[in-house]
This record gives sequence, C-alpha cells and structure tokens, in this order.
Amino acid sequence: MKAVVLETVGDVSVRDIAIDETPGPRDVRIAVRRVGICGSDVEYYTHGRIGPFVVEEPMVLGHEASGVITEVGDAVEHLAVGDAVCMEPGIPDPNSRASRLGLYNLDPAVRFWATPPIHGALRETVVHPADFTFKLPDGVSLAEGAMVEPLAIGMHAAGKAQITPGDLAVVLGAGTIGMVTALAALAGGCSRVVITDVKPPKLAIAAGLNPQAITPVNVSETRVADVVGELTDGWGADIVFEASGAVAAVEGAFEPLRPGGRVVLVGMPGEKPAWDVIAAQIKEARIETVFRYAHVYPRALALMGRGTIDVTPLITDTFAFDDAAEAFAWAAEMPETSVKAQIELPA
Amino acid sequence: MKAVVLETVGDVSVRDIAIDETPGPRDVRIAVRRVGICGSDVEYYTHGRIGPFVVEEPMVLGHEASGVITEVGDAVEHLAVGDAVCMEPGIPDPNSRASRLGLYNLDPAVRFWATPPIHGALRETVVHPADFTFKLPDGVSLAEGAMVEPLAIGMHAAGKAQITPGDLAVVLGAGTIGMVTALAALAGGCSRVVITDVKPPKLAIAAGLNPQAITPVNVSETRVADVVGELTDGWGADIVFEASGAVAAVEGAFEPLRPGGRVVLVGMPGEKPAWDVIAAQIKEARIETVFRYAHVYPRALALMGRGTIDVTPLITDTFAFDDAAEAFAWAAEMPETSVKAQIELPA
Amino acid sequence: MKAVVLETVGDVSVRDIAIDETPGPRDVRIAVRRVGICGSDVEYYTHGRIGPFVVEEPMVLGHEASGVITEVGDAVEHLAVGDAVCMEPGIPDPNSRASRLGLYNLDPAVRFWATPPIHGALRETVVHPADFTFKLPDGVSLAEGAMVEPLAIGMHAAGKAQITPGDLAVVLGAGTIGMVTALAALAGGCSRVVITDVKPPKLAIAAGLNPQAITPVNVSETRVADVVGELTDGWGADIVFEASGAVAAVEGAFEPLRPGGRVVLVGMPGEKPAWDVIAAQIKEARIETVFRYAHVYPRALALMGRGTIDVTPLITDTFAFDDAAEAFAWAAEMPETSVKAQIELPA
Amino acid sequence: MKAVVLETVGDVSVRDIAIDETPGPRDVRIAVRRVGICGSDVEYYTHGRIGPFVVEEPMVLGHEASGVITEVGDAVEHLAVGDAVCMEPGIPDPNSRASRLGLYNLDPAVRFWATPPIHGALRETVVHPADFTFKLPDGVSLAEGAMVEPLAIGMHAAGKAQITPGDLAVVLGAGTIGMVTALAALAGGCSRVVITDVKPPKLAIAAGLNPQAITPVNVSETRVADVVGELTDGWGADIVFEASGAVAAVEGAFEPLRPGGRVVLVGMPGEKPAWDVIAAQIKEARIETVFRYAHVYPRALALMGRGTIDVTPLITDTFAFDDAAEAFAWAAEMPETSVKAQIELPA
Repeated sequence: MKAVVLETVGDVSVRDIAIDETPGPRDVRIAVRRVGICGSDVEYYTHGRIGPFVVEEPMVLGHEASGVITEVGDAVEHLAVGDAVCMEPGIPDPNSRASRLGLYNLDPAVRFWATPPIHGALRETVVHPADFTFKLPDGVSLAEGAMVEPLAIGMHAAGKAQITPGDLAVVLGAGTIGMVTALAALAGGCSRVVITDVKPPKLAIAAGLNPQAITPVNVSETRVADVVGELTDGWGADIVFEASGAVAAVEGAFEPLRPGGRVVLVGMPGEKPAWDVIAAQIKEARIETVFRYAHVYPRALALMGRGTIDVTPLITDTFAFDDAAEAFAWAAEMPETSVKAQIELPA
Repeated sequence: MKAVVLETVGDVSVRDIAIDETPGPRDVRIAVRRVGICGSDVEYYTHGRIGPFVVEEPMVLGHEASGVITEVGDAVEHLAVGDAVCMEPGIPDPNSRASRLGLYNLDPAVRFWATPPIHGALRETVVHPADFTFKLPDGVSLAEGAMVEPLAIGMHAAGKAQITPGDLAVVLGAGTIGMVTALAALAGGCSRVVITDVKPPKLAIAAGLNPQAITPVNVSETRVADVVGELTDGWGADIVFEASGAVAAVEGAFEPLRPGGRVVLVGMPGEKPAWDVIAAQIKEARIETVFRYAHVYPRALALMGRGTIDVTPLITDTFAFDDAAEAFAWAAEMPETSVKAQIELPA
Repeated sequence: MKAVVLETVGDVSVRDIAIDETPGPRDVRIAVRRVGICGSDVEYYTHGRIGPFVVEEPMVLGHEASGVITEVGDAVEHLAVGDAVCMEPGIPDPNSRASRLGLYNLDPAVRFWATPPIHGALRETVVHPADFTFKLPDGVSLAEGAMVEPLAIGMHAAGKAQITPGDLAVVLGAGTIGMVTALAALAGGCSRVVITDVKPPKLAIAAGLNPQAITPVNVSETRVADVVGELTDGWGADIVFEASGAVAAVEGAFEPLRPGGRVVLVGMPGEKPAWDVIAAQIKEARIETVFRYAHVYPRALALMGRGTIDVTPLITDTFAFDDAAEAFAWAAEMPETSVKAQIELPA
Repeated sequence: MKAVVLETVGDVSVRDIAIDETPGPRDVRIAVRRVGICGSDVEYYTHGRIGPFVVEEPMVLGHEASGVITEVGDAVEHLAVGDAVCMEPGIPDPNSRASRLGLYNLDPAVRFWATPPIHGALRETVVHPADFTFKLPDGVSLAEGAMVEPLAIGMHAAGKAQITPGDLAVVLGAGTIGMVTALAALAGGCSRVVITDVKPPKLAIAAGLNPQAITPVNVSETRVADVVGELTDGWGADIVFEASGAVAAVEGAFEPLRPGGRVVLVGMPGEKPAWDVIAAQIKEARIETVFRYAHVYPRALALMGRGTIDVTPLITDTFAFDDAAEAFAWAAEMPETSVKAQIELPA
C-alpha cells in the first residue's frame, strides 16, 4: 500500500510499502483519511531520534489518525463497516501489570505508532484493535477526529488536575498542547484559564478560542503571578498546567499557585529544571505528571459531539497525501501563525 | 426597618420590625435588593415547621439574597461601599471542630437565615460577615446574584461527584434543584445530562437550558436506564444525581449507573426509601450525600461571570417587596411553568 | 481426579470427576492443599442457589484455596514448580471494559470458582492463570494462604474506606467478614476498631485478635453510638464498616458516624433496609460499596508476611479431604465458637 | 518566669523573663514539663536565622512540648486542670482563607513557637488555645507527649501519601524525620519500609524500630532501586518519602518508584535539586509536598495510645532544665548514635 515513509533523517517519500496485516476477531481495518503532523513526527524527520527511540529502518510516520472502517472482526460489536472513527495510537498488553491496574499508558510493552520500530498511520489502511478505535459522534468531522490524539493529552492532564468546578487555571505555553489543555481545562470545569507564551501570534490564537474565559499573558512583558494575583485578590491559581516544556516555565510553576493548589506537568523539558522544593512545600503543592493518556478518547469525543470543545480553529493547514514530503519540510519551519497541520488521504 | 414577616402559618405581612444590628470589624451592612423564594420559605409559610425547626415567633423570611454594600467594618479589605454582592445565608462558628476541618456546612452551631429562630433576609438591610459576602462579577445582575444560593447546592453536588471531564450524568428531578444541578454538572465537565421528571413543562424548561447537552426523559413514559443504555452501549451513566427527593427516584438511582459509578444524593426524601444495597454493591457504587454547600459561592460566581452558567432562564417570576404576601400565596400554588420567583426590594 | 462434589442440595460426596485442563503459556497447575469452607459453599449445600446462581449439575465446591505449583506455562516468569501459592478464585476477561479500567471484579463475564456452573477448587489439582496466582511469603503457611480469600474482602473494604492514619472505625458484625475487616482496618491505619455483634462468643474471639485496639460491643445490650460517643467526645467514628448483612445494622450505620465520615457496605442484606437518607446527608456521609476485591492479594500477603496481620486465630477447625461430607454437614450448623473451617488435602 | 533564652547566636541562658499571658475563655495554662530539641532550635542557636526568620531579640526556644494543665478558660469543655497534654506549636488565624478551607498549616499569619519573634515553650508555663492542646491517652508519658510534634510531620506525610493497605514504601533518610515517617507509614498501612542513609548507626536504630518490616539500606554501598526491585519483582515502590533534605536523595526519588506511584517530599533541601521531570512523567508519579501538619495530633496520640506507634526508642538523651545551655552546646554536635534530646522541667 502507499505510505508516507521516513527513509532517513530529512528524507520523506510517499511510496508503496509492504505491510501485511490480517484483522483478528477483535480488530477492524480502517481506510485512513486524516493524519495530523505531530512535533514528534517532525523530530524524527529532523533528528532521527527521540531519547532512546532511534529510526534505523524506513518507518511510516503519523499517529494522529482518523478514517473509515472497511472490515470488522467477528467479535466486534460496537463498530460497523462505514463508521467514521479515530484511533488510539498505542496498543498495550492487556495482561501487563500496569494494564490490569487500569494504567495501560504506563505499560512499557505498549506498541505506539511511528515510534521506532513501529510503523505509523500515514498509509492507506491500518488494522487496529476495536477496543482502541472510537466512532466519531454526529457532527464531528474526520479532520476533527484526527485532532483527538493531541486533545487527549490535554484531557488527560485536566483529569489528573481533579478540577473542582470554578477553578482558575494557568496554562504555561500556548503551543498545540497548551491550547488543547486550555480547552480541556475549561470543558472540565475551570472558570478561567490564564495562558502564557512569548509569541504574540500564539497568544492571539489561544485567546480567540474563548475570549471570555481565556486571558493571554506575554511572559516576556508581564509576570503571570501578577496577573493571577490581581484576578484572585492575591490568593493564587488553583491549578498550574505546565505545557511548554520550557525549563524556565517549570521552574516558575509554583509562583502563581495558591496554597493547596495543584501543578500538572505535561511538557517534557529538554534539560532538568532547578527544583524549588521549598516553594512547593510552603503551599503544599500537589504535582501530577502525565504520560500520554488513558481512557480519554470517548470522553474527548463526547465533549466534541456536544459542542463543548471545538478544535477546528487549531487545524490551520491541510496538505494532500501526495504532498507529504513538502508538508514535512514546511512543518520543520512552521510559522508562528500555524498550530496544527494535517495530511488528507484520498477517500 | 421594613421586613417580610411570617406572623404565623399562612400569614405573611410586610411591616416594620426592630432588628438592631451593629457591624463588627469583620462585617458589612448590605441594602438588600433581591431575595428568591425557596421551597423551605414556602414550607414554613404553609406548615410552620421543617423537621425539628418550628416557627414559634414571627420570623423574617428569605435566605436567597443579594444587595449593595452600605457600610464596611474596619478589618474588611476585599469589599467596599457600593459593591453589588450576594451572601451565604449560614454563618458557622469558625472554631468548631467541623469548621476547622473545612466542613463548615456541617457545624451544628451554624446560624442560618430564616431557620427558626433566626430572622431571614427579606428586609431593608442585613449585617453580615464579610467572609460570607461575595462581590458579583461584572455582568452578573442582582437578580442573578440572588440565584447563587440555590445554584450553590448544585455546584456542591457537582464538586462531590468528582466529575472526570466527559462524564455522562443523570439528574433525577427537573425542579429548581435538578436544574441547577444540571447546569453545574455541565459546567463542571459532564458532556451530557439526562434529566428526568414526570411534568412535561419542567422537562421542557430543563432541556431548553442547553438543548445540545441536556436530554429530557419523562419517567412516566420511559425508563431512564433504557435511555442511558442506548446512549452508552449498555455501559451506564458515570454519575446519577438524585435531585427530586422522590422515594421512587432514590430507589431507582442505581439502575442507570455504570460499574464504578457515583450516586450523589441531593434531594431529601420525605419517607425512607427501600435500599437495594446489593444493586449498589455489584456496581461498587460510591454514594455521596450533600448538605447545603461550603466554599462554592466564589466558584459559582466565577462560572457565571465567564458566561459558563446562565441562571436567568430560571428566574421566571418577580414580585415587588410590598406584594410579598401575594407572592407567598402564589408560591404555595406555583404553576408548573414557573421555576424561581424573586422579590425585588426598592433601590 | 478426586473432588468434593455437591451432587444436589444437601448431598456432598468425595469422588472422582473428569476435569480436563491443559495449562496455556500464561497458566500454572497447582496441587490443591487447603480449602476454606465459605458461607456461600454452605448456602449452595443447604439451598442449592444464591440469587440467580442455581446448582443444576453436580459441582465441585470451594473457592478459598492454596496449594503447591506442579507445572508452569512457558510465559510465566514469577512462579516456579514447588512454590506454595494461593489463588484468586475469579478470572475476568482482560479485554472487558471494566477490566481495562482496572475494575476487573466488576466484569460481568468473570468466571468464579464454585459459582454455578463453574467448578470450584476442592479437588486434587487446578489449572489457573499465573496472573491470579500468588506466592506465599516466608512464614505464611498453606492454611493461612487459604485465608487470603476472605481476608481480601476485608482488605478491599479497608482500601475503599480511604483510611487516614489514626481513624477510629466501627465494624458492624463479628462474623468471619467482620473479623477480617477489623484486622484489615487496623493494619490499614485505624487506631481503634469498635466491633459489634449480638453473640458473646464472636465478640470474645474478635476482641482477642488485638485486645488493645479492638473494643467489643454487644448491641443487644449497648448502643454502639453511645460507646463511640464516649470514645470521641461525642464526635463520632471516622468510618463505619457494615459487615453483618443485617438489615438493622445497615439502617443504624449512620448513627455512630462523625460529620464527613465514610460508611463501607460489605455485608449483603437479605432484605432491603429502610434508608434514612437525611441522616446520611446531615453528616455528608460518603458511602462506599464493595463487591469481592481487586488487586489486593499481594497486599494481604505482604501484611501477613511482615506479621502485621495474623489470621491463624480465625482457623478454628480443620477436616481431612475424605471427611468433606461430614465437614459440610457440620458447617451447616457451625457452633458460635467456630470461625473458619478448612479442608486439608493430602500432600 | 524562668525560661531557656537564646540571647544571641551561640548564647543560651536559663533565666527569668517577663511574659505576661492571661488565658482567654477558649485557652488553657500549662505547666511545661518536657520539651524536645529540634533541628530548627539548633539552627537558630548556631546561625541565628532560618531563611527569612532572623533572631533579632532574645527569644525563648523550644516548640516540641508537653505539660500539665493548671488553669482552664470558661469555654473549654474537653480539658481539665491536672490533665497531661501536648500542644501544637502553631496557632493560625481561624478566619483566614486557608484556615476556612481546613488548611490551617498554610495560613501565612500562623504564630509558631520559637520562630522569631514568637517566644517558644522552654519556660515554666505557657497559655495556649484549648483547640490546639491535646490530652495524652493513658499510658503515654510526658516524654512521649513531647515527641508528638516531630511525629506529626511523619503522620502528615503518611496521610498525604494516601496509603493503600499493603503498600511498600521507601523512606530516604534515617534522621529523626525519616524515623517518624517510617513509623507513621507502617502504622498507616504500609507492609514494609525500605529506609536509607549513609550513617550505619542511624540505619541500625531505624531497623531496630521494627526488624520484621523495616529494611535498612546504606546508599553509600547499595542502590535503593536495586533493593526495591528485588523485593517487588522489578515493579517498584508504591511510595517514596523523601525525608533527608539531601539534594541527591530528591534527585533520585523517582528511580525506585513504581508506575503510578507517589513521592512525598518532607525534607527541605538547602539547594535546588535538578528535576528529572521526564523520569517522573514516564511513571506518572504524583508528588505531594508537605509543610508541618494539620489535624494530626489526635491521630498520632490515638495510635500511640493503642501501642501501634512507640516513639520511646527515639528519645535517646534527656537534660535537666537548668542544664539547657549545655544541652544546646551538645545538640550542636550531636553524635550519630543519638536521635532526640529532650529537656525536662521540674514538676
């Protein structure tokens, strides 16, 4: 079948590749229709590795995928041929210790699309477990369906935050993950999100997602703790989501926090931040850390289906399947006014 | 000062009453402007008692109140003369064991407006602790401010439910409390609320609050478990809020629930329901019970200020202060098309 | 192989039965050595059914089992031939929705020993998934190993109670389940357990488990709320475990509770109790319900291995395998001075 | 009255000091009898400051105190003259925002003994709020009563850890705080504590507290992650308590942790550790931070009264009141074989 293959660093081609997949009784086959380009795809494209994961053989890219079901295993009950769906890209071992506890995202044996040596989803069809394939509700497009993967990270972070309705949250970083975290935090009960960045175009897009409830702060000009202090009579934010991966953001995460507040670390910093433990202790901060997501796809889709979360403003750029090489070259230099690029496969 | 006084069962008058209140350093004086009529006010009017609380002397009615500050104690920092505010009607002892734990609503020594022998707020002015007086955000009217008290019950219930974003909730009962619980559940992260009642006008008003996300079910015609089963592939609701106080509703609360779900008991049934303990156990239901509210006024106001919660459709009827006697007579026979009646005091 | 077979109501025989089991790669074969007699075994013996589960064919009894491994599947890493082990009697579908959430005990497809039509463990050997087979730590005997199943119920209840160290707990009912719940509550951080019953021999055994920390109350003579009130200056118990299944006990469970306390319903009442919802609400009681257990076998064994929990005083009677028919006849009329009877299989 | 006064850095005298205290209706007066010497007392003695708190005037030392009540305010009900008691050293403002939420330890207005400029408890009598004064149960001595303050830190940490019964915990650091944390973790439901240090005498004392359940690890010779891996088949510890304040210990806290585990930061490091955020994220570690304690004195006393926690092995040295200057000189150079020194006041 035709696929978008990372041949080696900096070299993407759209070409035939032999992938032989037969659906088992609990699987479905899906004609892939939309795939978002994630920062990790771009990282493999530009550097060939992320931490211990190294691209050593040509690998199909892409893990933010939606499509239409073309074949259904015998034991599958909740899906049918023709259903528009999106897919979780990671498949855990259901018998692992982590999976048995409900923590399947922490199973070290998970097979995750486009993480070497596992092929990704930028190809004509994929065979996938039905348990990790989710029908799109009415009114949710295939383009939106391919946004569920990044949104799931924000949803998982919002779940970990144990929001009490009416909480005020800070989101550090207005990249894609910051934006989906802001959307998930508001959908999950926050009354207001103060979002930070140093890039005015990102802040403008973020604020536009919900002008009544999202307050942008350019931290190259203004201290976020000052803004939060003013909004809360000096008390502080109930929750701080760190979604930038910037070392300075992690280091400053306790400053705008209220006593008894929670910090959720979503971004993965490239260097180790200096940890002001005492600043956390005098507020008895609870710090949650998140790794991908678990159990949130149906939740994200439910909120999208009711109109509570609208991801369409984040889909700023769309490329044709045959233009995938250009898409990756462009994505490696993505302008600040873009958020998420997707590749559209032919129907 | 002039006040709405329950003289004895069935006899309300608007007349002068001597209440001598001097604000302490942590208090404010408020010119009362709007007061909602609650079911408990009507119960004292029609029966003279609620459980152990008996009206033995003339008592000022009303506890759902908003107004404008006219005087501020020396130690008060966050409020000023002229601020539009709403007030929590219960004042706990800050040194009680329950208060020290943060559970001030469970303090048996709490003094609560219009609960005999404590006078209520349907009078020209009240003196109140600043800590239990909350400034209305921009765009929230005094009429909406007087709705915070009933909304706080729904908010407290939503907080106890520990909503995970995207949960599906059932709300049993579409009276005022059912409606504010539905609003709070959606604001707090639920993707959908299935609300039940046997009165079509109530269901129509409830569904109108958010037609995309609220599904009305007339339980005199349809089983709510069937509706939930269809919406969830037979899995069940994450949360069931019991907001009717109907014995049959409490008894049926476990039926639409999913395994591992939560039931929140808000309504206070007049008789003791038959408790199907095993039905709860096979789902390992967690049952939360709520009594009034604590710490939620600022949260409710924050969500109202951002437009996430709009209570104006619930304010269906308004009476002038001088017509309070007629208002109570009307409220005792309130039509099904009405939800909340308020009394407006002169500015 | 030889097995203890319930032929029909009231008729148990020890005889050969053909059970053909071949271990898969993730399974082990175990020579069964000790099996406790549970109230449910006795109920099938005396009445032939429990709720919807009806004995229609001869069925091997027993689900509280320990033994020694004789064969190990290829994929099993943590167990070896010769290991002394105990086994969880219920095997869920790892791909069910409940299992994926970590709630495998709530999977309706679970196959549970000695629940018709599934054969139990009172037989020479069983083949069992290694994931549900647990090695006994040094110093824990096979007799104690066969006590892990009932103890697991108390452990699961203690986990649901979310004990804060130093809590005072009430355990209603001093039968086997009440006793293991008391042991688990103390091991789990409670400073004191007030245990109730109407049978003096049960109370004497229970108190003897930890005379410093367990206070017996004969509720035919004394109100438990009075005892708790005296111990807590009138504040109440942090936790009430209902372990009797008695209707009156469930109905009175809120009385000794403190504001903000938790009730854990372990016992399964035969009739529906009258539910004093308002009594729960004025204390904002949280009510947890439990169904069997999940993830607690290794925890129970760890506490037994360290000496924190000692179940040996509960093993009051032991019968030989060949005397199983007599054992069941005796168990149907068990004296109040006995707690748990076990059947010992030949080595 | 006579008191132990820190005149200036390095200069302690036992002399008369004028402190004029009159008990209010909710207060008691206590004849002080035992006071432990805390690391913070020694720090003021040797350096004259801790962070922003600077000794600028002569200050009475000591905050780990017990005594006997000599006078009782009119509104005090639960205490009487002659009661042996211990006292929480911090008095919050009950009306602060933190206190109203139940987080009184986070109230910035708290007045804490022997934190400049507040005098401590090493003096003949103190007047104290009855709400923060706790009667010692039968069998708990005044010496043990003065250990409740440090134990409370371990108890608070154990509470924050949300122990599930049977958890395996690591405690990093075998100083006084590490030891009380180990005791609290075991009392709170842990089956085993692996405790680390680099000083053999500390490890020997710690292991002796409960040889069956406490495993000492000298981290100058052995990696704690290796020990935990062996004990848990490579899975990891459920909880890691950091009780050393050592930078390297904080930095390594995620290594022995299991997926989904919790880290509780009790120690206050002098420098900022390098934070391996990704190491925390791949395990979705929850990190709790603690500051002093709240609501735990009665819990600690209840566990001591039942014999579950025995702090007497930690009281290694006792000095007479008149020898306080020598005691502080000695404490500044305390040998590794000592844990806690106390000063005894005359009866």
